[in-house]
Amino acid sequence: MSSFGRMFRISTFGESHCRSVGVVVDGVPPRMALSADDIQVQLDRRRPGGNKLGTERNEADQVQVLSGIENGLTLGTPIGLMVNNKDQRPGDYGSMSQVPRPSHADYTYQMKYGIHASSGGGRSSARETIGRVAAGAIAEKYLLEQYGIEIVAWVSSVGDYDTDNVDMDTISRAEVDANDIRCPDVEAAEKMTAEIVAARAAKDSVGGVVSCVCRNLPAGLGEPVFDRLEAMLAHAMLSLPATKGFEIGSGFSGARMRGSVHNDPFVKKGERLGTTTNFSGGVQGGISNGEPVYFRVAFKPPATIGQAQKTVDFDGNDVELAAKGRHDPCVVPRAIPIVETMTALVLADLVMLQKMRE
Amino acid sequence: MSSFGRMFRISTFGESHCRSVGVVVDGVPPRMALSADDIQVQLDRRRPGGNKLGTERNEADQVQVLSGIENGLTLGTPIGLMVNNKDQRPGDYGSMSQVPRPSHADYTYQMKYGIHASSGGGRSSARETIGRVAAGAIAEKYLLEQYGIEIVAWVSSVGDYDTDNVDMDTISRAEVDANDIRCPDVEAAEKMTAEIVAARAAKDSVGGVVSCVCRNLPAGLGEPVFDRLEAMLAHAMLSLPATKGFEIGSGFSGARMRGSVHNDPFVKKGERLGTTTNFSGGVQGGISNGEPVYFRVAFKPPATIGQAQKTVDFDGNDVELAAKGRHDPCVVPRAIPIVETMTALVLADLVMLQKMRE
Amino acid sequence: MSSFGRMFRISTFGESHCRSVGVVVDGVPPRMALSADDIQVQLDRRRPGGNKLGTERNEADQVQVLSGIENGLTLGTPIGLMVNNKDQRPGDYGSMSQVPRPSHADYTYQMKYGIHASSGGGRSSARETIGRVAAGAIAEKYLLEQYGIEIVAWVSSVGDYDTDNVDMDTISRAEVDANDIRCPDVEAAEKMTAEIVAARAAKDSVGGVVSCVCRNLPAGLGEPVFDRLEAMLAHAMLSLPATKGFEIGSGFSGARMRGSVHNDPFVKKGERLGTTTNFSGGVQGGISNGEPVYFRVAFKPPATIGQAQKTVDFDGNDVELAAKGRHDPCVVPRAIPIVETMTALVLADLVMLQKMRE
Amino acid sequence: MSSFGRMFRISTFGESHCRSVGVVVDGVPPRMALSADDIQVQLDRRRPGGNKLGTERNEADQVQVLSGIENGLTLGTPIGLMVNNKDQRPGDYGSMSQVPRPSHADYTYQMKYGIHASSGGGRSSARETIGRVAAGAIAEKYLLEQYGIEIVAWVSSVGDYDTDNVDMDTISRAEVDANDIRCPDVEAAEKMTAEIVAARAAKDSVGGVVSCVCRNLPAGLGEPVFDRLEAMLAHAMLSLPATKGFEIGSGFSGARMRGSVHNDPFVKKGERLGTTTNFSGGVQGGISNGEPVYFRVAFKPPATIGQAQKTVDFDGNDVELAAKGRHDPCVVPRAIPIVETMTALVLADLVMLQKMRE
Repeated sequence: MSSFGRMFRISTFGESHCRSVGVVVDGVPPRMALSADDIQVQLDRRRPGGNKLGTERNEADQVQVLSGIENGLTLGTPIGLMVNNKDQRPGDYGSMSQVPRPSHADYTYQMKYGIHASSGGGRSSARETIGRVAAGAIAEKYLLEQYGIEIVAWVSSVGDYDTDNVDMDTISRAEVDANDIRCPDVEAAEKMTAEIVAARAAKDSVGGVVSCVCRNLPAGLGEPVFDRLEAMLAHAMLSLPATKGFEIGSGFSGARMRGSVHNDPFVKKGERLGTTTNFSGGVQGGISNGEPVYFRVAFKPPATIGQAQKTVDFDGNDVELAAKGRHDPCVVPRAIPIVETMTALVLADLVMLQKMRE
Repeated sequence: MSSFGRMFRISTFGESHCRSVGVVVDGVPPRMALSADDIQVQLDRRRPGGNKLGTERNEADQVQVLSGIENGLTLGTPIGLMVNNKDQRPGDYGSMSQVPRPSHADYTYQMKYGIHASSGGGRSSARETIGRVAAGAIAEKYLLEQYGIEIVAWVSSVGDYDTDNVDMDTISRAEVDANDIRCPDVEAAEKMTAEIVAARAAKDSVGGVVSCVCRNLPAGLGEPVFDRLEAMLAHAMLSLPATKGFEIGSGFSGARMRGSVHNDPFVKKGERLGTTTNFSGGVQGGISNGEPVYFRVAFKPPATIGQAQKTVDFDGNDVELAAKGRHDPCVVPRAIPIVETMTALVLADLVMLQKMRE
Repeated sequence: MSSFGRMFRISTFGESHCRSVGVVVDGVPPRMALSADDIQVQLDRRRPGGNKLGTERNEADQVQVLSGIENGLTLGTPIGLMVNNKDQRPGDYGSMSQVPRPSHADYTYQMKYGIHASSGGGRSSARETIGRVAAGAIAEKYLLEQYGIEIVAWVSSVGDYDTDNVDMDTISRAEVDANDIRCPDVEAAEKMTAEIVAARAAKDSVGGVVSCVCRNLPAGLGEPVFDRLEAMLAHAMLSLPATKGFEIGSGFSGARMRGSVHNDPFVKKGERLGTTTNFSGGVQGGISNGEPVYFRVAFKPPATIGQAQKTVDFDGNDVELAAKGRHDPCVVPRAIPIVETMTALVLADLVMLQKMRE
Repeated sequence: MSSFGRMFRISTFGESHCRSVGVVVDGVPPRMALSADDIQVQLDRRRPGGNKLGTERNEADQVQVLSGIENGLTLGTPIGLMVNNKDQRPGDYGSMSQVPRPSHADYTYQMKYGIHASSGGGRSSARETIGRVAAGAIAEKYLLEQYGIEIVAWVSSVGDYDTDNVDMDTISRAEVDANDIRCPDVEAAEKMTAEIVAARAAKDSVGGVVSCVCRNLPAGLGEPVFDRLEAMLAHAMLSLPATKGFEIGSGFSGARMRGSVHNDPFVKKGERLGTTTNFSGGVQGGISNGEPVYFRVAFKPPATIGQAQKTVDFDGNDVELAAKGRHDPCVVPRAIPIVETMTALVLADLVMLQKMRE
């Protein structure tokens, strides 16, 4: 259950306050050039505290390579990766242990396991995604080097502030990282930033949407019928903390359209067929058609807020709860590399599955 | 790849025009009362042609039980189920075999497999869902009898016509089936019906949204971290033909909210804790919390339309394509039992996984 | 649990007396020439009653292709295969339903499921292997056509009568099928036949051993560390009814040897390295080395015998049990195609897994 | 491929000379008392160098718990376990890197991956089993505490020296560990010890057999049809380095018997049915029947020997190879906890699968 993927397969471990979090990555192709630095890049993009919008905890999050790489080359064997937790003890969270935080996982973990980590979010913590991101960096490198596949995510909304002014054919990670909010539309970025600052000032939090595009995918990826490309992406995205929705191509707006408009007519594009429009989002019948794959992921506002909330403890007694310490008022800027990671993990797996038919 | 579930596991087979479509259902608990009639009910609800809105082909779709049931009781062994295809030969589709239909799976299957079924949609056809629905009927019976779990889906939008006037606490299948469009809001249903009739008249098609609620789920279902309840539901729903989006609870609208509003405060409800609001959609940290689980699935307009479309054949030559025969102008009414089925398959699997911890 | 394989994956269904037994075969490569006749050949070799040694029931066992093949070519989609049971009702077995047959599965199925098929062996019956053999015929065809891989099994012992006089480099199925006992050593075959005839005359049964060789395997098959080639073969063979042991290469006799004798020195063989001896059985570190893979499988004497046996019924009351009707006194001649089938299923899966690395 | 088990699932990582070896254990039940000491016990039993028979390298092999345990209780989340390799650099092995060692995995890994670890055995090394043993210790504790299941393995042969003088109903680990050879038959143990000493003196190695018994298993474990108890055990045992054979119950000797002798008659044993003999080895139709499960595993002589061997290098040039340093002349004494571990992993998984039916 803590594993994802069939052939390019990861198994993550670690809670928010245990000794280490990490991942075992199985199925990485052999003889691929790979170093800790390749992995650290995405971990650094994921790390909070690099800007005025995130939490201010300072977590170094240096990855340690335990196995599977020798002399800068992968051996084809499982790659063990680990990051030590700096904060291995309960801190500010202590007072909350008897009160399940509203819209957090404390109550459901307790109901499921009859126990829950005494501090922090346990496995539901964002720290669990460290293992994912470390593994995803390997998947990305493989996809880029072998197929030229590019995956770029950006913030397309925060609260009520949206942008649809991003060119999916050209957007790059450098452009996304140009500002802290990770929205390449500068005008929208300013409004989004103001919204996050306002939420923080109000000891509140705010939701947002991440968009993502994958370019240069070969046609033929996705496994009928249950493991369609969009099904795997939806599974991957909804496995991320705080996600509430996924849509690919036209998405929910496609449900309002007529077929005569929504259909993407074929046209000759060089040696292959392409389409003149791309409401499908690069996927037809669950299989990539060679056009860009793009999708959107909805993130709710973080559950942990400084405002006082009326709720009850595990015994049902009324309490008022207000989180102490600093908490992230909006997850979408930090979610960028995590959405890219899950995309890469899905694609690497599907690429390998398709190789069996060649 | 044609299998779904871990413990309650189905493997479907069959194309649109082969001899039979069906499913093997493994992991069904033993000693459960089960007959072909129990399964036929949902197949009949799925069957097209029962009303003025669907296609008019007459498909009997009588299920045959091949194994796994004896004297009206399940043996705990795999249950083989099969429905013969009436139309086992290419018909109206013949002229399209050299032209990949826009936004259909012809092109991508050809790119993936180097071959595609000579007629109809092959595995991407809606007929593939027969096996799913047959299996889902078993899952539903198990969930209802063992846990009292109720799953009800309805049409919540067609084109631009919506309803949010459905009481999720009480809505029943009988109310949903009261009209052909399967929307229990009579006023909205009329507008939706008119929209479908209009689309058909224009030799066009139209999209829509299906909503679904699950009541009486025990707390504790869903497997951290990759197989969260919402991740499994998203995977299941996006594995259905023509789907473009999934959202649970507040969904995309939750991304616009502040945490102080979105958080669901706990309150004592009898012996357990409940929440006063349910923006979470019954799921926290990927695990059910005992509140109703509800979600929405976006369906695009069907790709096969009678209107002439400009496109190209496999060789890139310009052609004009117009589908002959009768085609379903809107899939959402027929999608109701299919959405319920996939929900039941997800829940049955998660229920069995959770039993291991008891 | 009724599925086997990862990429070339089968799911079988059916009890001894239900309507049909069969299999869904997923992962078959597309565009492969395949007909019902290709499958029927191995089913006919498996069928009892073709000679004086087996049971005399006449089971036609004609395979029906339900899906996945069109115009003589595989589509890459799941292939559904089915054989109807002629005898769909309890017959001679009726009197045994309250008495668990010694060394049969009646008792353990009852303990596992709280129910067991009212007649015959249910899923533990040899009829379950029909689905496997049908699927295996496809795997064999793929391996032979794509890689030239040959799989040949033969009877190497019945009771105390053995042969080690079989040339593994040349032995063919035609030679094996030259006599009813399926032992290509004519002298040994006569003694084995006499032993089976004697066992039948004594209303008794007798065990035996099947040997198998796989030629022309490429080096590199087998997945470290848990899915080594020998581990997968052992799993496959011990999943067959009535098996008690598996050994590869030197097997148990290798445990008596010194390393200086057991080690297989490398030598140049054309373009590749080979070994001068083959105590390893073609596998080193769990991966094929290009030499022939050979192994042996022990089958116990069939549990159902005509002799009266003292035992107890489900309630613990003393009874004397004697099977009526005709029963197979020795399974090894019929086990030949079944051992070959399971071998082919293992190899097809490992071949496809290895293709991902190419 | 580096994962084993479905519900109680382990993923191992690490080569012989990388930074660390370890395992992620998923599916461990929550609220189970567990400490590093519980795990260290079996690691210490596995460790070489504790006696005059094994290699003399001093490996501390102290386990580090990375996640999943808090305040001495399991959380139900993945447990990460790790042991650092002391020797993280090539040593005595250096001269062998261009010569594939006969009957070792160097050649096959190179053929499979196009690369192999520059020193030692990589993933085929016995050090890989550290992760397994650490995980198995948890499985054993669970089985013992929840079901009273006892698993005891011992050396039953070394070279030509056997014992069948061990009482499977009473044999304990303390008795097994009473001597270095881990054979509880003192007379046989002396001969076995002498054989190992002689092999070492001759710069040679010798094979052997490990026997194992599992007591107090409930009836009903094992999953028809592919994951029978004996199939899972065979898979597990043949996944261990140096294994060549597996037999359960009567094993290969059962193939020589008549059914009238081999059948195990039922008899009333207290509240349940038992059998008067146990040729079946506690398994009927692939499912445990409540009698002791016992089996034997054949280990070949270790491939690495000090004697000079004629072989060729990767290019096919004649070379003479003699291993330097100290190497284990016989693996069976050290294999004892490893066989127990794999047994425990199989049983824990099957126990959890069966819980779903209760």
